[in-house]
Amino acid sequence: MIAPKLLYRSGSQCFRRSRVPSIPCRSVAKTIFRRSYSLQTDDTSIKSLPGLDPSKLSVTKTITPKELVPSEELVFGRTFTDHMLSIEWTASEGWLAPRITPYQNLSLDPATCVFHYAFECFEGMKAYRTADGSIRLFRPNKNMERLNKSAARIALPTVDGKSFTSLIAQLVQLDSRFIPDSRGYSLYLRPTLIGTQRTLGVGPPGSALLYVIASPVGPYYPTGFKAISLEATDYAVRAWPGGVGDKKLGANYAPCIVPQLQAAKRGFHQNLWLFGEDEYVTEVGTMNLFVALRDKETGKPELVTAPLDGTILEGVTRDSVLALARERMVPKGWVVSERYIRMAELAQASQEGRILEVFGAGTAAVVSPIRKISWKGELVDCGLKKDVEAGEVALQMKSWIEGIQYGDEEHEWSVKIETIINHR
Amino acid sequence: MIAPKLLYRSGSQCFRRSRVPSIPCRSVAKTIFRRSYSLQTDDTSIKSLPGLDPSKLSVTKTITPKELVPSEELVFGRTFTDHMLSIEWTASEGWLAPRITPYQNLSLDPATCVFHYAFECFEGMKAYRTADGSIRLFRPNKNMERLNKSAARIALPTVDGKSFTSLIAQLVQLDSRFIPDSRGYSLYLRPTLIGTQRTLGVGPPGSALLYVIASPVGPYYPTGFKAISLEATDYAVRAWPGGVGDKKLGANYAPCIVPQLQAAKRGFHQNLWLFGEDEYVTEVGTMNLFVALRDKETGKPELVTAPLDGTILEGVTRDSVLALARERMVPKGWVVSERYIRMAELAQASQEGRILEVFGAGTAAVVSPIRKISWKGELVDCGLKKDVEAGEVALQMKSWIEGIQYGDEEHEWSVKIETIINHR
Repeated sequence: MIAPKLLYRSGSQCFRRSRVPSIPCRSVAKTIFRRSYSLQTDDTSIKSLPGLDPSKLSVTKTITPKELVPSEELVFGRTFTDHMLSIEWTASEGWLAPRITPYQNLSLDPATCVFHYAFECFEGMKAYRTADGSIRLFRPNKNMERLNKSAARIALPTVDGKSFTSLIAQLVQLDSRFIPDSRGYSLYLRPTLIGTQRTLGVGPPGSALLYVIASPVGPYYPTGFKAISLEATDYAVRAWPGGVGDKKLGANYAPCIVPQLQAAKRGFHQNLWLFGEDEYVTEVGTMNLFVALRDKETGKPELVTAPLDGTILEGVTRDSVLALARERMVPKGWVVSERYIRMAELAQASQEGRILEVFGAGTAAVVSPIRKISWKGELVDCGLKKDVEAGEVALQMKSWIEGIQYGDEEHEWSVKIETIINHR
Repeated sequence: MIAPKLLYRSGSQCFRRSRVPSIPCRSVAKTIFRRSYSLQTDDTSIKSLPGLDPSKLSVTKTITPKELVPSEELVFGRTFTDHMLSIEWTASEGWLAPRITPYQNLSLDPATCVFHYAFECFEGMKAYRTADGSIRLFRPNKNMERLNKSAARIALPTVDGKSFTSLIAQLVQLDSRFIPDSRGYSLYLRPTLIGTQRTLGVGPPGSALLYVIASPVGPYYPTGFKAISLEATDYAVRAWPGGVGDKKLGANYAPCIVPQLQAAKRGFHQNLWLFGEDEYVTEVGTMNLFVALRDKETGKPELVTAPLDGTILEGVTRDSVLALARERMVPKGWVVSERYIRMAELAQASQEGRILEVFGAGTAAVVSPIRKISWKGELVDCGLKKDVEAGEVALQMKSWIEGIQYGDEEHEWSVKIETIINHR
């Protein structure tokens, strides 16, 4: 049990923020009002604070450039580029001048609220080097939208997406030597927003730090697809209606590890989160899930994923798969559905040979084929033939999406960083 | 969408941890097995790693002792003592030698997993200076039990509670000059455990840091009780069966702020979390809730709090209130219940004049009387008379618990730090 900061008084000082001048106040209620009004995202006062200003960017280049890690030794999120982008925010000053500096440690007071109350959200996006030598981002506006939704849900400040994307593009440009030029390689970008207030009271952070680090990554499946197996988890719940499972908060990740380890212990690569008495198939925690199956009555093929009801992460790859399926598969007779699908329905379809394929979708692998799902002691076959590691839809989606990401197909989703920087 | 670390391969190196020698492996499954076995708390291999060893403590005293903040200016969790306790853990070496050092910033790589996936849990406890000059902790074993439950749920290492308590006692002893000797004052202790692995893969942290900081705090209500008002929240949900709402994880706090601000905007001090269609009264997020009411049929007084069903934080003060009520109130005709109570039942009892009082219970204030609860546009009166700020049960509980904490009453719950240090 900890003191709710908003209510804590001692003498006439009832509330202070780190980095922000203390505010003596007459009544607790008054302070609460002032604070809530200054932190709601639908509020006007916050708009008068300085926003993110890319023209104020300062760049300090490293004097000890790193050696490039050979492509074949790259491990996801393990090595980072020479530089990082950082932008501080305070409740009184808004967004301060952005800085690109050498990649370096953060020095934080042990009372900083990110360590105690998980004031943290992030994004995952990639920069791709294309055949014509240009570097592109994939749908960065989707990441910006989601970052702002995540931030607002935990009382962290929001940013102007276009300005932030232009700053990210400048970091990518500066560190572009780290992006290998082979297909499947990219620079994984990790925008991260943390609360930095140095007090233990539980309340909205009075200061925050938005930073971006970049990690060169190789293809998820270096030697071609490898279908994985999942264990359906019914003893723990990842997200719930009215919760925060649709936001990319740190809070959604740590609690997933033990069920993942339990699944691994029994020989499965990942766990699949079910929800509720009906055991709806939701997501994998690091990927959204797609099921391709034939309708029992009509025999028509259907591509299904869980609807965005607040319990499902709004994956950019999920959205891209849906959009491409609607554009390119529906004309060929497919039905594309965002609907609930029960684990029992999936198991029944499997028994009846109606499952065409199942795959995960996410930034890391684009698509990740699933061979089987363990559920109540049963192994649900997901339709892949024994000697095959991926189904047709997964292969087609990977080809379409990577074709756009690597510039084989000109598409509005793929934006050159030069364009972003020049049109900010 | 991010790459699940366990599955990530590049060449023959499929997984590495920071600070831990890299492990080349032949198959992903093998690695998963090895890792899960080495991190489950029910596993034997982890027990062979070095545990917490208080005899290895090194103490580096500050050369710039802080000036004491005048008692009347103390704000909860804002100023800290001269020193902090830190103990590092790695998956290969276990717990390293504990260190007491000057209070100082943590220097962490921006890729550290605590910033991204909320690998963090904490405790809140207090050290009290008693009339005889001794310093006491209150039920530290309960905090240790809960810390270990929290840690295990997010794949962080557990500790031997007795050893850790003895180290905390030594920190308190060293910084005892910060504990004011007036009644109501104490030293708030914040044990914090964070994952420190420096990679972005989502998996169990290969390294962690357990630290304790200490903040001198004044009485929660310096000029006597002040009853607060709550807003019942039905549009957001704090916790869910199968979730982690009963653990003291950072993840449970950041998502509570916006509903708290919404309540504050409408003039309420805190929000009260309801659960489910039946709108069960659960907790306040920083306090457990107790309702004293008369039975409609028998007229018998009953003290009710929500049961520990996985959605309620297992408050030490909650447990203490229940134990004292069973020992000292039941003989006087009270019924003490851990049961579900619907918001509608509470409202009806209020209308019928059967609510005796409602109060929150937590480490910060011990008890916090509630005057009214806003629910569906209705103000539910919680039984306090207009000119009164606390009910009899709340006053009695505060008196009993503080009596034990400050050593007026000798009780097994209150332990002198000398005893802890000498009997470790």
